[in-house]
Amino acid sequence: MTAKLRLGMVGGGQGAFIGGVHRIAARIDGEWDLVAGALSSNPERARASAAELGIAEDRAYSDFNEMARAEAAREDGIDAVAIVTPNHMHAAPAIAFLNAGINVICDKPLAATTEDAEAVAAAVKASGRHFILTHNYTGYPLTRQAREMIAAGDIGAVRVVQVEYAQDWLTEEVHNKQADWRTDPAKSGGGGAVGDIGTHAYNLACFVTGLKANALAADLTAFVEGRRLDDNVNVMLRFEGGAKGMLWASQVAVGNENALRLRVYGSKGGLEWDQETPNVLRFTPFGEPPRLLTRGGAGGTADGQANLRTPGGHPEGYLEAFATIYANAAAIIRDGSRAGAPLPGIEDGLSGMRFIAACIESSGNDSAWTRL
Amino acid sequence: MTAKLRLGMVGGGQGAFIGGVHRIAARIDGEWDLVAGALSSNPERARASAAELGIAEDRAYSDFNEMARAEAAREDGIDAVAIVTPNHMHAAPAIAFLNAGINVICDKPLAATTEDAEAVAAAVKASGRHFILTHNYTGYPLTRQAREMIAAGDIGAVRVVQVEYAQDWLTEEVHNKQADWRTDPAKSGGGGAVGDIGTHAYNLACFVTGLKANALAADLTAFVEGRRLDDNVNVMLRFEGGAKGMLWASQVAVGNENALRLRVYGSKGGLEWDQETPNVLRFTPFGEPPRLLTRGGAGGTADGQANLRTPGGHPEGYLEAFATIYANAAAIIRDGSRAGAPLPGIEDGLSGMRFIAACIESSGNDSAWTRL
Amino acid sequence: MTAKLRLGMVGGGQGAFIGGVHRIAARIDGEWDLVAGALSSNPERARASAAELGIAEDRAYSDFNEMARAEAAREDGIDAVAIVTPNHMHAAPAIAFLNAGINVICDKPLAATTEDAEAVAAAVKASGRHFILTHNYTGYPLTRQAREMIAAGDIGAVRVVQVEYAQDWLTEEVHNKQADWRTDPAKSGGGGAVGDIGTHAYNLACFVTGLKANALAADLTAFVEGRRLDDNVNVMLRFEGGAKGMLWASQVAVGNENALRLRVYGSKGGLEWDQETPNVLRFTPFGEPPRLLTRGGAGGTADGQANLRTPGGHPEGYLEAFATIYANAAAIIRDGSRAGAPLPGIEDGLSGMRFIAACIESSGNDSAWTRL
Amino acid sequence: MTAKLRLGMVGGGQGAFIGGVHRIAARIDGEWDLVAGALSSNPERARASAAELGIAEDRAYSDFNEMARAEAAREDGIDAVAIVTPNHMHAAPAIAFLNAGINVICDKPLAATTEDAEAVAAAVKASGRHFILTHNYTGYPLTRQAREMIAAGDIGAVRVVQVEYAQDWLTEEVHNKQADWRTDPAKSGGGGAVGDIGTHAYNLACFVTGLKANALAADLTAFVEGRRLDDNVNVMLRFEGGAKGMLWASQVAVGNENALRLRVYGSKGGLEWDQETPNVLRFTPFGEPPRLLTRGGAGGTADGQANLRTPGGHPEGYLEAFATIYANAAAIIRDGSRAGAPLPGIEDGLSGMRFIAACIESSGNDSAWTRL
Repeated sequence: MTAKLRLGMVGGGQGAFIGGVHRIAARIDGEWDLVAGALSSNPERARASAAELGIAEDRAYSDFNEMARAEAAREDGIDAVAIVTPNHMHAAPAIAFLNAGINVICDKPLAATTEDAEAVAAAVKASGRHFILTHNYTGYPLTRQAREMIAAGDIGAVRVVQVEYAQDWLTEEVHNKQADWRTDPAKSGGGGAVGDIGTHAYNLACFVTGLKANALAADLTAFVEGRRLDDNVNVMLRFEGGAKGMLWASQVAVGNENALRLRVYGSKGGLEWDQETPNVLRFTPFGEPPRLLTRGGAGGTADGQANLRTPGGHPEGYLEAFATIYANAAAIIRDGSRAGAPLPGIEDGLSGMRFIAACIESSGNDSAWTRL
Repeated sequence: MTAKLRLGMVGGGQGAFIGGVHRIAARIDGEWDLVAGALSSNPERARASAAELGIAEDRAYSDFNEMARAEAAREDGIDAVAIVTPNHMHAAPAIAFLNAGINVICDKPLAATTEDAEAVAAAVKASGRHFILTHNYTGYPLTRQAREMIAAGDIGAVRVVQVEYAQDWLTEEVHNKQADWRTDPAKSGGGGAVGDIGTHAYNLACFVTGLKANALAADLTAFVEGRRLDDNVNVMLRFEGGAKGMLWASQVAVGNENALRLRVYGSKGGLEWDQETPNVLRFTPFGEPPRLLTRGGAGGTADGQANLRTPGGHPEGYLEAFATIYANAAAIIRDGSRAGAPLPGIEDGLSGMRFIAACIESSGNDSAWTRL
Repeated sequence: MTAKLRLGMVGGGQGAFIGGVHRIAARIDGEWDLVAGALSSNPERARASAAELGIAEDRAYSDFNEMARAEAAREDGIDAVAIVTPNHMHAAPAIAFLNAGINVICDKPLAATTEDAEAVAAAVKASGRHFILTHNYTGYPLTRQAREMIAAGDIGAVRVVQVEYAQDWLTEEVHNKQADWRTDPAKSGGGGAVGDIGTHAYNLACFVTGLKANALAADLTAFVEGRRLDDNVNVMLRFEGGAKGMLWASQVAVGNENALRLRVYGSKGGLEWDQETPNVLRFTPFGEPPRLLTRGGAGGTADGQANLRTPGGHPEGYLEAFATIYANAAAIIRDGSRAGAPLPGIEDGLSGMRFIAACIESSGNDSAWTRL
Repeated sequence: MTAKLRLGMVGGGQGAFIGGVHRIAARIDGEWDLVAGALSSNPERARASAAELGIAEDRAYSDFNEMARAEAAREDGIDAVAIVTPNHMHAAPAIAFLNAGINVICDKPLAATTEDAEAVAAAVKASGRHFILTHNYTGYPLTRQAREMIAAGDIGAVRVVQVEYAQDWLTEEVHNKQADWRTDPAKSGGGGAVGDIGTHAYNLACFVTGLKANALAADLTAFVEGRRLDDNVNVMLRFEGGAKGMLWASQVAVGNENALRLRVYGSKGGLEWDQETPNVLRFTPFGEPPRLLTRGGAGGTADGQANLRTPGGHPEGYLEAFATIYANAAAIIRDGSRAGAPLPGIEDGLSGMRFIAACIESSGNDSAWTRL
């Protein structure tokens, strides 16, 4: 075993949610050590958060620009930085680290504005560094398997895509750290649920089908009185090649926790997958009995078998899928090649930004079909 | 027990599908005797079909007009006629029997054209007879229970409606009696899947929520080469009061048999029901654990408990739900009152026709929002 | 269509449960007319019950012996009698009708005592009449399909049988017509849950596997204070050929409605079926993905396809399975042959009685292995 | 954050299974660093395995006795050792480390023989060190929640316990590192499936119900020709207080991956949990609709909420449950107290050994009831 890679983190201080998830994901496969962080812009909280995480004092920054400079200058500087701030704070640190020659692992969506997103893309291009966007649901063995099966023609030509992501935690007016920035246009961008979870659904549909969407018609709604961003997202999609889709994302769908679900139907078969029971993929060849493909079970594809930690029947979940993103990131940073690791990157980030923008535009234009 | 009611049937001869279903439904609760029929317009097949069903020779007609006249003239004439022909053959017999003073139980959709539908509606009004449209999924105890729960405010104000009806039997080009008329505009009307199953989905959503839809945006597709009518239906809906909905109907969704599924979310809770496992209704009060309400189980409402033939755990299904339509029809014909029986009728038929027409219009108009 | 067969009924008057189920089952396929009955031993209730069911006054008996004599003497006498009384009242009417040359359809278990059971068996043999025991769960298309698949070697040699039947309606002390006789040794026989539902589970296991059990070890319990018969049944089974089994039947398993479930594992595959979702059979060939075989779906066997009333996805349930018993009974009465209809009969009845007796004996003998 | 604890490992070298699982579990919550190991008794493989895991050369041992001595002597010696060898190699290292004053985390079952098990117990007692047995299924939030609910009386007095653990990986004769020692009496002990997975099922039933079993009647079978240890285990149980149970463990149940399932029914309610879908616990209060309690959802108990890494709907699985054992172990080692952490220990290990021995004895004695 070569030595562990060194990871830095921007955001994710005390009280944050997704930062902790990134840290567990980075630990699971033993490929990363968290050694530096600008965990908060508040110096005191940054220091305290770093101390809790065992980060040395001299690598506990409160300014990400300083961190990028300092880490780039160290011999034992970080191999990559994880950016886990609210949306509007993705672009600046991403650009700073890329410009400093440091690989970036960034939470989604890519940014709060199109301008920011394009600036990141430019920095990725200019730097030649790796940029990985944590569309973590693509890390599940069975979403990858579904992708390979479709690419191999197992369901024929894709015709129908049904994707949905339903939650209920914003059913009522709620105020906490997570809710506040997600419902604040200044921090989240112009999209609410559409950016927070709609982009995951859209990304997963494109990832699995291998298709690009050409156009969409959207109807966004904010059901909770006083809410400034959408909490329910109805979208019709048209894909290249003629496939048609529907996408529903909601944070007011009472009784749903984190119900990301994808169904794809082609001329020869269908595939269905549900994030809350992620260890089974329903495969329905036309005219034959439905088959239940399990994580680690019979009928697995190369990618479906590639990142298993336990045999079938030992449920792996959200954190393991997320960990696979980190394990794959480590592999490509070590190898310098992305071959074999279907990791979401800057193109997916830009695509997600176009999706958000198109949804907002279409919804504001009486759901007119809008190009992507 | 008063004597059984006398039922006649138009359509449903040898080789038909839905006629047989109506006959079983009429038998289950012992309220009806099938005594007359114009089972086919082919005299020979009409006679043979009638003989198989134990219908006396003198009441085996090949012309529904003659049947309406003759039955109206008999002292022991039929109490109601079931019309189970293809769509384009609903209106003429319906009008003939209504004009002869005979109650009508008619398969859905109401007709193949708006003109025909309005003519039926006029005949209903003029005749004062009962007209029942067999949107049979409203006969399930738990769809009725869901309707009562929403009316009682159990989920608060309805916000989000997700309804879908997925099948796969038209995945490839197929030719048989059932497929042929359903894919023939001359017999089915301008809608394919949208009329055949989309209307069921739409009706169920309105029935359960108690809401009317104001407008829709639709994207209809015929995926199978050479098919003249839609086989996949994507629709966004806007309901009175601000609720938003999505409706998906497909006959090319490989791996789905008869997957009618409704999910409704309100400000205080949610309800989910699936026709293929119809004996459970998932109820999710906000902030509480989801509850599984079963047919005949604890927590039943009046209508949910009203037409049970067996205790909970003894699965009742499609035929029992259909039978409840017939049992309720018998009750209102005996009583002369519809009170207490939430049976779909002429208004639902007209609503379904508007739905089909609006879908076709919107889809032809680049999915523009279209009034209902 | 030949004329309907004529059915009589003993038991099943006002307030009864299973009698109504038999009547619906007899109606569904249109093969039977209920024309005579000794619905109660109370003459007034017998008359009133008969009137409610449209039975002519002169065929409303209060004495089953008289009914057997009178019906045997009529030209239009009944073709079969359904016996739907409590267990201790099965044998006498069964023998009376058999001796009168009338076919018998009898509810299970066969009788309350071994002596009664043997007397019925003797009468069956002497009379040459058909005797059908309504182990109705064998009427489901997918239990029959499972049976055919095992017979065809689809799962190899049977090794492991897990069968259970869980209910909760006797969780507390309860008094009503159904509970009273089932918990009264004088009416139910020496077995409580073991006779009422354990026999169904045992019958289904033997029916599907095609195996006979050689011996059992049982531990019966009455959990509710003051209850005189078992309400929970734990059994280990040894089958001919070396297969091992477990059988659990309980009427105090809170949260279970009518959960009859069978799982069979062989050297090459497995089969799993659950009565509450009866339209799917899980088939697991070793080393391959599990397959979901549906009622009416791909992969059906001859018996699995033989008694379908609707296509796949239109759930058929308990009443349809029961109706298949009646439809098959009609067929064998018309044909005089049982070929092709896997109907439970007198041998199954005797086998069930031996099962009950062996459970009671074993349980009283510290669960010693007891021959069947 | 205090510094990480230092972990050593005995066993778990190249080609092993459970060692890798322990290492991931130890990493997930960031409480442990693996710093020493006797990963194999083969010196070369021990060195190579250690190098792969980043263990310093001077702490890569091939003899666990040497490791115990050396680590006890270091100032930075390990805080605990994980023993992940085959069953017959648990006792010797456990005793060596305990005697050296080092805490032990040991895989289950406790040992291959009763004598070995008692020797470990004596060493635990003499040393005063912590001894944790990785019955990892007790680390699931919802098994802990079930335990608390039963202790709180939520289902009343326990009456019926149904527990099962079904796999199929030994359906045929198979030879690999995992299968070989598990089917070899010299390494596994006298039990096959009964020790490997039966002990998990038994432990879980006792853990959740809080009950001790008094006696059992067992029927063990080896279905695969030539197999020397049982691969299918049928057991009836009697618990203190009168509850009755059934336990089934099988490694030839084709189509089952790792199906550990527990159902408990009491006088007032029931609880059902399935390891393959571990994020939901079905709770059925008598006379009320079943409720689905989710990991992190409404209705959680203290222990049910205590070790969550993500919100509800983000499936956590086998590795997270295992990690909780390690996180809790760290906590009690830091605190010196077990309060609040329901960790399985030496008593559970002895109980499991008695279970194995009683199963073997009973099965050899024609399933006679045998004391535990």
